[in-house]
Amino acid sequence: MASQSGPLVIVGGAEDKTGECRILRRFVELGGGKHARVLVITVATKLPVEVGAEYIDVFQRIGVEDVRTFDVSHRDAANAASAIQMIEQATCIYFTGGDQLRITKLLGGTRVDAALHEAHHRGVVLGGTSAGASMMSSTMIVDGQAETNPRPSIVDMAPGMEFLDGCVIDQHFAQRGRLGRLLSAVAQYPHHLGLGIDEDTAVIVRDHVLQVIGRGAVSIVDAGKVSYSNLDRVRRDESLALCGVQLHMLPEGCGFLLRDRKPIPDFEQWLHRKELSS
Amino acid sequence: MASQSGPLVIVGGAEDKTGECRILRRFVELGGGKHARVLVITVATKLPVEVGAEYIDVFQRIGVEDVRTFDVSHRDAANAASAIQMIEQATCIYFTGGDQLRITKLLGGTRVDAALHEAHHRGVVLGGTSAGASMMSSTMIVDGQAETNPRPSIVDMAPGMEFLDGCVIDQHFAQRGRLGRLLSAVAQYPHHLGLGIDEDTAVIVRDHVLQVIGRGAVSIVDAGKVSYSNLDRVRRDESLALCGVQLHMLPEGCGFLLRDRKPIPDFEQWLHRKELSS
Repeated sequence: MASQSGPLVIVGGAEDKTGECRILRRFVELGGGKHARVLVITVATKLPVEVGAEYIDVFQRIGVEDVRTFDVSHRDAANAASAIQMIEQATCIYFTGGDQLRITKLLGGTRVDAALHEAHHRGVVLGGTSAGASMMSSTMIVDGQAETNPRPSIVDMAPGMEFLDGCVIDQHFAQRGRLGRLLSAVAQYPHHLGLGIDEDTAVIVRDHVLQVIGRGAVSIVDAGKVSYSNLDRVRRDESLALCGVQLHMLPEGCGFLLRDRKPIPDFEQWLHRKELSS
Repeated sequence: MASQSGPLVIVGGAEDKTGECRILRRFVELGGGKHARVLVITVATKLPVEVGAEYIDVFQRIGVEDVRTFDVSHRDAANAASAIQMIEQATCIYFTGGDQLRITKLLGGTRVDAALHEAHHRGVVLGGTSAGASMMSSTMIVDGQAETNPRPSIVDMAPGMEFLDGCVIDQHFAQRGRLGRLLSAVAQYPHHLGLGIDEDTAVIVRDHVLQVIGRGAVSIVDAGKVSYSNLDRVRRDESLALCGVQLHMLPEGCGFLLRDRKPIPDFEQWLHRKELSS
């Protein structure tokens, strides 16, 4: 069965841009390697020129000839025919970090938004780091307190760009001590798996299968079988009780079946078996 | 059945000493209230005079008349008859923060060590905060990197004072992003439950039953039923994979059965039922 949509490359922020650039290389490989046509969307950042130039530099350094950047500062520009054309021509689209609300505010519901979803369904690779990672899900974490125990009030959520359903994504995860806020998010709707992605670490998602690459780990927080939660009784600033959360720590080489909520300890072996059986 | 040993009050550091002092009050209540004879052991800190004076002040302020401090700077002093006498006279013994290795190095195997265990078995309340919390277990976390994904090399362990078996304790837990290091500790011996205690939060342990009090939460990390771990294959600096860790977030009002590895969502209700059935 052919893949219905292109791969998502969801990066936990601070990906290596000066050394081997393994995550960005993998992103480009998925979309044509040196023949890739990379579009860097800098809408999340208030420094689009600087951030755009940095990504042009790194993508060119790893061998991509065709790298462009795209930015808008008002929604009208996200309805322009020229913008749609840039998206239609790209094989890899990458969202930089910044503020995830800028992405949804400036692009949400525009023609660019529709063109991005069409591109994704056509098989185009979509990537994003930090804010560009958060916005991938249907409900995204907008902001929240780190280094605290879970309480409903410590996490702010908003609609995301809906490239990946059934998940809530957090980034800079171990580095900023964000377990409490991710637990607060999934506690509120345990249908959502919590994906906590470390810095310089990414998940590649295809057909509801997730593969981990990079230097850190991905924490998967599954509150689906929680045996007790006090969410219905606590005030927003009170401490959450959560009993029986499943936690999976997945470094590179591991994967996860998002629909079955099952870890894949050895991704290569799993892929090999799957290919043999198909 | 009478309790075999006195309660342990294990505090995640930074307990309130200027406001309501709820944790320190509870500690004192367990050992006689205003008639308690409190001994503060400052062996962990290099500032025993300052830290000792601070605790004398706070315990006196909450109504304890008899507060003493005890410190040693060499092991000989921990074999002195006067030291044993101080321990024998106390109804509440509290270990301050500092460096947990100072506690085991200076007290381990001395007559004071034996007297502390005798006191504990006699029913005396033993408390400890931060370093004084870490040392409570048989194997203690000595040091380790925070805000990182789990790897064997990020946690250093050593023998603890053995007041509580079957557990490894970490403190300042959410505040310092220490999930990675606690997972690294329990991954190495999943018989140990990981207790991650937040600041101004404590567990009271009696007869293998744990009760949570304070402002934050206690994270209980149970790797007993891990379905996959790569611990046998990773180098010490490589990322650990751990699938199927059970995580319980327990704020005040909750408890935990350490032997059965089961959370108690409502401690008061549980206690009431237990009393009815006994």
